[in-house]
Amino acid sequence: MDALNKATAVSRILEPHSVAVIGASASPSKRGYQIINALQKAGYSYSILPVNPKGGAILGLTVVTEIDALPEGVDIAVIVRPAEEVPDLLLQCGKKGIAGAIIVAHGFGERGDQAASTEKRLRDALAESGVRIIGPNTSGMVNCTVQADLIGLPELPPKGPVSVLTQSGNMILTVLEDSRAINGPGFDVIAGLGNQADVGYDELIEELCLRKSTRSIAIYNEGFIDGRRFLNSAARVAESCPIVMLRGVRSHEGGKAALSHTGSIAGADDIALRVLPQMGVTLVDRSDELLPIAALLATTPLPKSQTGIVVLADGGGHATLAVDALSRACVPLASLSGETKAKLRKVLGEEASVENPIDVYSALDAHPDVFPECIEILAADPEVGLILTSGMFGAYHLRFEASLVTAENSAAERIVALQKTSGLPLVFHSCYASRMPENHQILRNGGMQVFTSLDWAVAGARALFERATWLSKHSSHNATLATGGPRVVVPNGLSAETTAREILQKLGVDTGQWLAAVDAASVEAAVSGFATSCAVKVDSAAVSHKSDVGGVRLGVTREAARAAAADIAGALASHAAPVTGLGFIVTPMVDRGVELFVGATNDPVFGPVVLFGSGGVLVEAAEDVTFRAAPVSPEEALNMIEETRVAKILDGFRNFPRVDKLSLANFISSLSVAVLRMENLAELDINPIIANESGIYPVDVRLVGK
Amino acid sequence: MDALNKATAVSRILEPHSVAVIGASASPSKRGYQIINALQKAGYSYSILPVNPKGGAILGLTVVTEIDALPEGVDIAVIVRPAEEVPDLLLQCGKKGIAGAIIVAHGFGERGDQAASTEKRLRDALAESGVRIIGPNTSGMVNCTVQADLIGLPELPPKGPVSVLTQSGNMILTVLEDSRAINGPGFDVIAGLGNQADVGYDELIEELCLRKSTRSIAIYNEGFIDGRRFLNSAARVAESCPIVMLRGVRSHEGGKAALSHTGSIAGADDIALRVLPQMGVTLVDRSDELLPIAALLATTPLPKSQTGIVVLADGGGHATLAVDALSRACVPLASLSGETKAKLRKVLGEEASVENPIDVYSALDAHPDVFPECIEILAADPEVGLILTSGMFGAYHLRFEASLVTAENSAAERIVALQKTSGLPLVFHSCYASRMPENHQILRNGGMQVFTSLDWAVAGARALFERATWLSKHSSHNATLATGGPRVVVPNGLSAETTAREILQKLGVDTGQWLAAVDAASVEAAVSGFATSCAVKVDSAAVSHKSDVGGVRLGVTREAARAAAADIAGALASHAAPVTGLGFIVTPMVDRGVELFVGATNDPVFGPVVLFGSGGVLVEAAEDVTFRAAPVSPEEALNMIEETRVAKILDGFRNFPRVDKLSLANFISSLSVAVLRMENLAELDINPIIANESGIYPVDVRLVGK
Repeated sequence: MDALNKATAVSRILEPHSVAVIGASASPSKRGYQIINALQKAGYSYSILPVNPKGGAILGLTVVTEIDALPEGVDIAVIVRPAEEVPDLLLQCGKKGIAGAIIVAHGFGERGDQAASTEKRLRDALAESGVRIIGPNTSGMVNCTVQADLIGLPELPPKGPVSVLTQSGNMILTVLEDSRAINGPGFDVIAGLGNQADVGYDELIEELCLRKSTRSIAIYNEGFIDGRRFLNSAARVAESCPIVMLRGVRSHEGGKAALSHTGSIAGADDIALRVLPQMGVTLVDRSDELLPIAALLATTPLPKSQTGIVVLADGGGHATLAVDALSRACVPLASLSGETKAKLRKVLGEEASVENPIDVYSALDAHPDVFPECIEILAADPEVGLILTSGMFGAYHLRFEASLVTAENSAAERIVALQKTSGLPLVFHSCYASRMPENHQILRNGGMQVFTSLDWAVAGARALFERATWLSKHSSHNATLATGGPRVVVPNGLSAETTAREILQKLGVDTGQWLAAVDAASVEAAVSGFATSCAVKVDSAAVSHKSDVGGVRLGVTREAARAAAADIAGALASHAAPVTGLGFIVTPMVDRGVELFVGATNDPVFGPVVLFGSGGVLVEAAEDVTFRAAPVSPEEALNMIEETRVAKILDGFRNFPRVDKLSLANFISSLSVAVLRMENLAELDINPIIANESGIYPVDVRLVGK
Repeated sequence: MDALNKATAVSRILEPHSVAVIGASASPSKRGYQIINALQKAGYSYSILPVNPKGGAILGLTVVTEIDALPEGVDIAVIVRPAEEVPDLLLQCGKKGIAGAIIVAHGFGERGDQAASTEKRLRDALAESGVRIIGPNTSGMVNCTVQADLIGLPELPPKGPVSVLTQSGNMILTVLEDSRAINGPGFDVIAGLGNQADVGYDELIEELCLRKSTRSIAIYNEGFIDGRRFLNSAARVAESCPIVMLRGVRSHEGGKAALSHTGSIAGADDIALRVLPQMGVTLVDRSDELLPIAALLATTPLPKSQTGIVVLADGGGHATLAVDALSRACVPLASLSGETKAKLRKVLGEEASVENPIDVYSALDAHPDVFPECIEILAADPEVGLILTSGMFGAYHLRFEASLVTAENSAAERIVALQKTSGLPLVFHSCYASRMPENHQILRNGGMQVFTSLDWAVAGARALFERATWLSKHSSHNATLATGGPRVVVPNGLSAETTAREILQKLGVDTGQWLAAVDAASVEAAVSGFATSCAVKVDSAAVSHKSDVGGVRLGVTREAARAAAADIAGALASHAAPVTGLGFIVTPMVDRGVELFVGATNDPVFGPVVLFGSGGVLVEAAEDVTFRAAPVSPEEALNMIEETRVAKILDGFRNFPRVDKLSLANFISSLSVAVLRMENLAELDINPIIANESGIYPVDVRLVGK
C-alpha cells in the first residue's frame, strides 16, 4: 500500500496538476520569479501557487504567505530556497499533504563533508515528511504534455513521445537543440535527477513507462544509487518502452572498480557495457546520438525476426558507406529474392544495382516516384525487415529542378501510406535533411525520422534490430531460471580451494573430480583413486597463488605421489610466511583442451556479475572477458561465449579440440545462479577451466569473501 | 621534363583559365548546357568555349563546330559525350594542345567485360594524346577560387581552405551540406576522381598541396590504383598540408586481401588503418566527420609538443562527457599549475571547479567575459596545448537574457585577439551552434570552428594532437633508415627454413643461432655444438607446418640427437606425401620468454608491410597484430609494440621475464628494411619469436615467394 502511494506521488510529480513555488519572488532575476513566468508562458493551465512570507502578488498571482496556508493535496512544490532551509520546508510540505517536491538548491551531498549535516537533515526530513523529491541540485522538470515548465526554458519544447532523464542541465539543452536540428518528434517529460537523494532512475523509468505519452526514454546517466535496482526496472520497462542511455563519468568509474580483483581485468565500464544491454538498454557512446536514437526508437516499428536490412540509395558512395557501417555494426543485410530483384530491375532499368545495397543510380533524378515503387516491391519480400534509404532523397528539387517539388511531396505521401499498410520500419538519411524540405516533413508527420547524418541512420537501424532481438530472446531466457534454494555465506577472505569447491557443489555447481588429502599417504591414496596422473596442489586459505610458492606439482603418478606431497610441504616450509594447517587437493590431469576463465564478482554498482573469457596466466593481458548480471540462462551464456575472441577456436582450431559449448554454457548458468545464493561474495575465479570435446574441467578455483 | 609537364597539366585542370565544353548543348536538361550555365552563374571570368558540330550559340556564347577550331592551349576540356566517342575526342584534344580533360561518361572499366574494348581504346588514346584526364565516370570538378563550377551545382560553394577529393558524387553533396550546417570555412578545389584511369589520389594531393589556397584535403576514397604511391605522396604532402580521409568499401576489401596468409590474420582494412596514419593521414570512420575535421585542420594551429588539452566547460555534464571522450581517444589532459588554478579561482569564485576539466559553473551565466579571462590565464600555462570549450557558450543571450548579446560578442572578439596573440589552438563546442549566433560567427571569422556536436570537437582535438605528434616524429624516424643495399629474389613457394634464414642474414637480419644438418650424425654434431638442449626440426620446402607432420622434437640433448633425427625421418616417411631431400635445422632451446610474432607481407594495395603482435599457435585467434608499411625505424617499431595488447606483459608480468624491447624494435626495423630488398616476396612469418631479458630468439621462420 505504501509502495503504491509512493508510486502515485512520483506520477504526480511528473505530471503536476497544481504547483506551489516555495520561495516565489517578484524579482525577474530570481529563479522564484522565472519559474512562475515560465509556467505562464508555457500555457500551464492548472493552479500556480506562489509562496513567500512577504505576501503580495507576483505576475498577477496572489502570494500565499506560508506553506500551511496552501490548499490541501497540492501535487508538487518547487523549492527554490537555499539548502539550509530545505529540510524544514519539506516537513511543512509533508504536513500539508503535498505529494512531491523539486529541490533546486545545491550544497548537499555533492559538496562532501562541508555539507554533510545539511544532507543528514534532508534525509531525516524525507523520512519524516513522506514527501517524494527530485533532487536536490537539479535543474528541474518539464512536462510538455501539460505544458508545465519548471526549469524556466526560453520556450516550451514541442510535445511528443520522447522523455528525458538527466544528471546534467546542459544535456537537457543539448537534447533540445539536437531535436530542433533534426525536427524531432518532441518531448513528454524532461527531468533533471540531481543528487537522487530520493527518487532515482529506476523509479522514474517505471513511472514514465506507465505514461501513454512516453514512447522512449533518453537518459544521460552519471551513476546509480542502486545499479541492481535499475537493472531490474530496466528489464521490465524495456519490454514495452525503449531506453536509450548515454553514460558519463566512464573514465573515472574504472578507477573506483579497480578495488576488486576483477577490476584489474576490466573496469566497471566494461561491466556496464554488457549488463545494461542485457536488460534491454540501448547504449550510445556519443552525446550527439542520444536524441536521434531515442527519437527513432520512439516512433519506428521494429523489424520482424529472421529479417535483414536493405539499403536503398541514390548514389554508390552512400550505398557503400551505409553497408560498411552496417557491417561494422553487425546489422544483418537481407538477401533479396530473385522475384524482388526482377521487379526492381523493371522499375530501375539496366544501369541500377538491384543487389543489396540497391543503387537506383540515375533512374531517380527525374522521377522521385521510383523511390516509393522500390519500397513497395521491397515490402513484399519477407526477407526485408527494414529499409534504410540513403543519399539525397527529397532534395531533387533543390539539386536538379525546382519543379520536382510536387513529385517529391507526393512520393513522400505515398511512402507514408506504404509504411502504414506494411508496418515496415523505414529509416531515412538525406544529406539535405537540414534544409527541412516539405517532403521530409511529410515523412516526419507520418512517424518517420529523416537524418542528415548517415551514421545516425545506421546507429538507429542497429538499435532497432538489437531491440527486436532482445525482445524475442529476453522472456524465454528468464523463464528457465530458478534462483531460490539454499544460501551459503562465503567465509571472509580467501577460502581454501577444497572449501571453495564444496560451497559450489552445495549450490549445485559441478566442480568435477577432486579429492582432499591431509598428508603424503592420503595424497598417494587420492592419486591412486584416479585413472590418470594427477595435479597435486597445496590447499590453504593462506596461499593466494599456489604456483608462485612452489605449491603445485603436475602429472603426478601414484609412484611419485608421496614425493610430490613432501616437495610441496618443503617448499611451503621454506617460504617467507610458512603455512600452517597445510592440506592438499588432488585432481586428475586434463591432457588437452582450451584454457578458459569463468568467474564472478560483486560489482559495487551492479551487484553479482558473472564473467567468461580466455583463461590461463595471461587472463589480464588477453582482455578477452565478457560480463553479465547474474543469473544468466544457458542461452545467454552461449551469447557470452560467442562474443569473446576465444570463441573462434572453440569449434576446433589447429590442434585444439572442438569444445562442448553446451556443457560450458550450462556451467556458466549454474554458476550464475549459485552466485546469487552466496552471501558475502567478493570474487570467484575459476582459472583455468579446461574445455575439450568431452566436457569442462575446473582446474583452479579461487573464492574470496568480503 | 616530361614529369614536370604532366604536373603542370594537372595544375591547369585544377585551376582552369579556359574551359572547352565538348558536347555543348542548347537543351537545359543536358549536361552540356548545365555546365555552361553553372560556369556563368558561378561567375567564372575566363573563356568558356562550347563545342558542337551543329554550331550556333548557347547562352550567349558562339559554338565552335570542331575541336580543331578551338584556340591553342586551352586548359581543360569537359567531355560530356558518350563513352564510345571519348577516345577519339581525346586524340583531337591532344592535337590541339589541350592540357587536360574531365571525362563525365561512364561505361568504361567499371562495367567489366562489356566495356573492356572502350577502356582499352581510352588507355591508348591517353598514351597517344598526352592529355591528362580526370575520370572517366566522374561528376566533375569545382574550383571555388576561380569560380569554375564544372559539376553544375545549384550554387557555387563558398571559397575557403578545404579541398575535396572523392569517388562519389553524393559525398560532394554531403560535404557541401555538412559545411553549410556548421558554417564551415569554405572550399578551394572539389574534384570527383571517377575511375582514376589517369590522374589518381597521389598526384592530386601533391598538386593541391602546392596551392596556397588549399589548407587541408578531405578525401572520400574507395580504393587506390597504386596504394604505395599514395603512401609516398601522403607522407610528403602531410608535412605541410593535413589530409583527412573517409574510406569506403572497407567491408569488401577484407575479402580481396584474404588471398594471402596475412589476410587470414587481418583483412586489408586493418592494414590501411595503420599504414595511412603512419604517413600522416587523419582517418575518420564516420561520413559526418569528414568535413568538420577537415575544416578544423585547415584553420587551427597545432598544439605544441609535450602539452595537453584543457576542457573549459560551463556545465558538469559536458565537462564529464568531454573528458570521457578525450580519454577514450587517448588525448593527453594538461595538468594545470598551482598558479593557474589560483588565478582561475580568483576569476571563477568558490563554486567553480578549477581542476581540468574546468567547470565555470554559474560564474559565467551573467558574465560571458569570464570565458576570455579563463582563456588568457590558461594560455599563460606552458602545459596547456589546446583549449576545448564546451557547453552553451555564446548562447547566454538565448538561454538567459537577450541583453547579454553585446557582452557575448565582445567576449568573442576578445577571444579572437587572444588566439592571435597566443597562437594557441582553440576548439569550440556549443550546443546552440546550429542557431548561428553572431558571436560564433565572430569566432569563425577569426579562424576558429564552433561545433554543435561535442563528439566532433573531441575528434578534432584528437586529430590536432595526433598530427602534431606525427609531425614531430616523422622526419626524425625516416632519417635513420637506409633502404639500399643488396637485393634477393625470394624463391617461388615455400622456402626451407634454412634457406629463409640465409636470405634474412644476407639482408642484415640476425636470425640467431642455428645449424643445418643432413643426417642423424650431423644432427648430433650440431646439438653438441650448443650449450643447451636443442630443437630439432625437419628442414624442407615441402613441409608447411612442421609439427603437424611430426617434424619437430624439442629439448633434444646430445644423447637423444640421433634418435630424434630418426624419429623425424620416420614420421615423414610414413606421411601421406613423403618428403624427399630431407634435411634438419637445429636451434638451441630458449627456456623462457614471451611468444611473439614478427612478419611481413606484400599487401596488394600498399605493398611491403611489416607485422608485429602476439605469437604462438593462436596468432589468428588472438587478433593482436599491428602493421606498418616497410621500412620502419626502431622508434616506429617501438610504437608498433606499444599498440598491441601483448605489450602489457613485456615489462614483466607474473612469471614472465621483462623483455628487451629495444632489441625487438631493432629487429623489426632491420626486417622491414630487408623486406624492401626482397623481390617476389609473398609472406614472411617468424612465429614464434621468443623474447626475454637477454634478447630475442626467432624460433620458426617461414618464407614464401609469390
